Amino acid sequence: MRGASREARLKARAAPPVAPAYITRAIPEYELLSAEGLEAVERHADQLLEEIGHEIRGDEPAIALWRRAGARIVDDCRVHVPAGLARQIVRASAPQEFTQHARNPKRSVRIGGRHTVFAPAYGSPFVTDLERGRRYGTIADFHNFVKLGYLAPWLHHSGGTVCEPVDVPVNKRHLDMVYAHMRYSDKPFMGSVTTAERARDSIEMCRLLFGAQFVDSHCVILGNVNVNSPLVLDGEASRVIRTYAAANQAPVCVPFILGGAMGPVTTAGALAQCFAEAMFCVALGQLERPGSPAILGNFLSSMSLRSGAPTFGTPEPALAYLAIGQLARRLGVPLRCGGNLCASKVADAQAATESANSLWPAFLGGANFILHSAGWLEAGLAMSYEKFVMDVDQLGAFHTLARGMALDDNGFALDAFREVGPGQHYLGCAHTLANYQSAFYESQLADNNCFEQWQAEGALAQPQRAQRRWQALLESYQAPPLDPAVDESLQDFSARRKAELPDGIG
Amino acid sequence: MRGASREARLKARAAPPVAPAYITRAIPEYELLSAEGLEAVERHADQLLEEIGHEIRGDEPAIALWRRAGARIVDDCRVHVPAGLARQIVRASAPQEFTQHARNPKRSVRIGGRHTVFAPAYGSPFVTDLERGRRYGTIADFHNFVKLGYLAPWLHHSGGTVCEPVDVPVNKRHLDMVYAHMRYSDKPFMGSVTTAERARDSIEMCRLLFGAQFVDSHCVILGNVNVNSPLVLDGEASRVIRTYAAANQAPVCVPFILGGAMGPVTTAGALAQCFAEAMFCVALGQLERPGSPAILGNFLSSMSLRSGAPTFGTPEPALAYLAIGQLARRLGVPLRCGGNLCASKVADAQAATESANSLWPAFLGGANFILHSAGWLEAGLAMSYEKFVMDVDQLGAFHTLARGMALDDNGFALDAFREVGPGQHYLGCAHTLANYQSAFYESQLADNNCFEQWQAEGALAQPQRAQRRWQALLESYQAPPLDPAVDESLQDFSARRKAELPDGIG
Repeated sequence: MRGASREARLKARAAPPVAPAYITRAIPEYELLSAEGLEAVERHADQLLEEIGHEIRGDEPAIALWRRAGARIVDDCRVHVPAGLARQIVRASAPQEFTQHARNPKRSVRIGGRHTVFAPAYGSPFVTDLERGRRYGTIADFHNFVKLGYLAPWLHHSGGTVCEPVDVPVNKRHLDMVYAHMRYSDKPFMGSVTTAERARDSIEMCRLLFGAQFVDSHCVILGNVNVNSPLVLDGEASRVIRTYAAANQAPVCVPFILGGAMGPVTTAGALAQCFAEAMFCVALGQLERPGSPAILGNFLSSMSLRSGAPTFGTPEPALAYLAIGQLARRLGVPLRCGGNLCASKVADAQAATESANSLWPAFLGGANFILHSAGWLEAGLAMSYEKFVMDVDQLGAFHTLARGMALDDNGFALDAFREVGPGQHYLGCAHTLANYQSAFYESQLADNNCFEQWQAEGALAQPQRAQRRWQALLESYQAPPLDPAVDESLQDFSARRKAELPDGIG
Repeated sequence: MRGASREARLKARAAPPVAPAYITRAIPEYELLSAEGLEAVERHADQLLEEIGHEIRGDEPAIALWRRAGARIVDDCRVHVPAGLARQIVRASAPQEFTQHARNPKRSVRIGGRHTVFAPAYGSPFVTDLERGRRYGTIADFHNFVKLGYLAPWLHHSGGTVCEPVDVPVNKRHLDMVYAHMRYSDKPFMGSVTTAERARDSIEMCRLLFGAQFVDSHCVILGNVNVNSPLVLDGEASRVIRTYAAANQAPVCVPFILGGAMGPVTTAGALAQCFAEAMFCVALGQLERPGSPAILGNFLSSMSLRSGAPTFGTPEPALAYLAIGQLARRLGVPLRCGGNLCASKVADAQAATESANSLWPAFLGGANFILHSAGWLEAGLAMSYEKFVMDVDQLGAFHTLARGMALDDNGFALDAFREVGPGQHYLGCAHTLANYQSAFYESQLADNNCFEQWQAEGALAQPQRAQRRWQALLESYQAPPLDPAVDESLQDFSARRKAELPDGIG
């Protein structure tokens, strides 16, 4: 603002951004398909579940639940669901929206309806930054990303496996990961899903943090469960879904479909499959405990014709995102989509284009829980420190987008037009002075200076500015307070469980 | 496609992409504002034109046209337009859509309605590439960008001032620029707008290329005219609008508003102003020659609170884009928006994020003519060779998005589900083999390989791959045939006009 004083500028710069605990969208969803189109997708999803069937391999209680609900079971594992039954089960009891409670009540998030929650990327074995390059993730990296997520104003959620801490035995990692989310952040988080036992440990730690009674009646943890697409749920995954549901916690049920590999290459077919699988899993949670919260997920992408490699930020999954948003609203359950996805190995223009091409349709499609919103690189194989803060910057812009346009007297600024008149500038007029501090979303990592100034400051590309930012953020980090007695009980639990278990690799 | 033969893969790779002359969107527009909201914007736009008034400075015939139409003129230059009159003039005669003819009839574009035309960036004094860096543009650069635009499958239009050829005298540049579009491309293009005389020269050259009679009854050239926002049209600009309209050619009427400078900082006010100014200019063209084609333009962006510098790809202009799409449809004229806009000095992640944040709302908002779709860097000060081909790649993806989702039997792929069944893969199934070559949009510049392969190939970021591509494209360039007699007449005209004019700098 050239018209404002230097003092006012500095003050405005120092003010922390106003960030809500979650987004409530004031703008409408984008409606890609007509009602007839949506009915056609639903009909095909029903047909897949009825005619082809969905397998559950090695979880007799889950099969029994479906049998009792009216499904036809073939070969002890293939569940043929009469058309409409899965939808009916979901609609009968799954909440359309619910609150996931954080240990800091101000951070609790509303999931579903017109709300959107951003969570960081999930599951990468590698981490990368400009200085140290690409390497396996460690528990120290895990702590760093939890801390960066805590400090990120536009991330509402601490996420789950923000990177794999490969320096901790596989069967004990979940204890350290859940503890890190509880200790180093006060935002809501996700628990383990690799085995039902680890899911139970995650929930048990929540009972220590929130109190057992509170946990039984409030959602405090999510578990992100992948379907073994096409149309298979292995017994461990189905037990994990049932474990979260039984504890009144929320499984996120996520078909994992790269078109041409785990589903057909054509988008309509992959979409119908994805919807069928996710609805089947959400219904299973309802059969286990009616009324328990759940999220309908999807992980749908394309592949490279040249190499068979997975591709991200391509137009086909964008169309699928937009349509599945409509399907989830018709079904009446919250939707998870992926956020800033990309295939690029570095935080370059490819990464940014692909990420934006993924975030835009997820957001406009009305996704309620957007996982992989920050840090994702390399088809999910690496978590990038630089991209993490760059993505967070982009999430901030979507907060402004979500608010829509203020069509009130101040917004229309008629007095300013009267004051300024034709051919004059608005830099110093009363309306500008009254509004400029909040008028525009201000990116922390975009360089808008002139070429000469940018050059004088080192001609940095965005990742280099991002490097400075995440390093400064980590230096400034201070842990949110945690009751020492609770902390001790969590550490005791973790120590006891670790002592009970031999180190494992699977 | 791992399941397909190497031969099939190579053949598919070699096949030229199927690119239409323009896009016809099969997907719906995004509707941001309600009918009440749109009426409020229209009401405020009307009020600006009636109460504040729009000046035309130094063009008595234009003032006379408005006086005869019923406007009240104050101080010989301020035009107070009764509420609703500008809209009424536009609706009475401006075409809702029209064809801009190319010298190659297959390249003619339809502008308006459900159609979208992509044109390259316009007006930068500088050009930049990875090898030579940033420098003033020359006529050689101009030729290069016309050639690259000709070769770009996803650019429908050759544009206008693809860069400023600063090595040619200012008052003669237009002759070389228009000739370059005619000679080195066969796509539609834009003419000069810096003076009415140069606009007339541009149109005269079209008469030589297309025939005078054809030009009088068909649109063959656009002229991109900036309003001197707020609410002023200088006499040269208004004469240029009238010159194009009088020749039955299409002025693109573009308010130039950076919120807080040439308009209020609040989006609703800037939007109402933009709509008022553009409608006023389109109406002027209709008063000059009813029924002549025109495009409603906008160039709306925000500014940095920290420096006062213009910013691009921010959420406020995204909201404005979405709303002005609705306003243009209600008015019934084709809409121009900006495409891949950014403030970054290099083709990095910032450039890509900002560009995507600009292209998405322009496209979903239903813009019909998207200028600045390729090459734009540095708030429009530089045209980048690398970003040009990177942007074109992104435009290709939007062609797929525009087609929407095929909800037919092949799309739903029921036979593939029956063939493959649960737990198996789709790589080699009949449906995949029949569809994989056309199933996914294949970026030319995204690297989707694994980290190790990417590293073995030099660990290139996207701009480095883009550099190889534009260099290879220019090497492969072959000019489209042009009748030698026409070519000679164009060169004669240009030589004669240059001889008539002393070298000028303004």
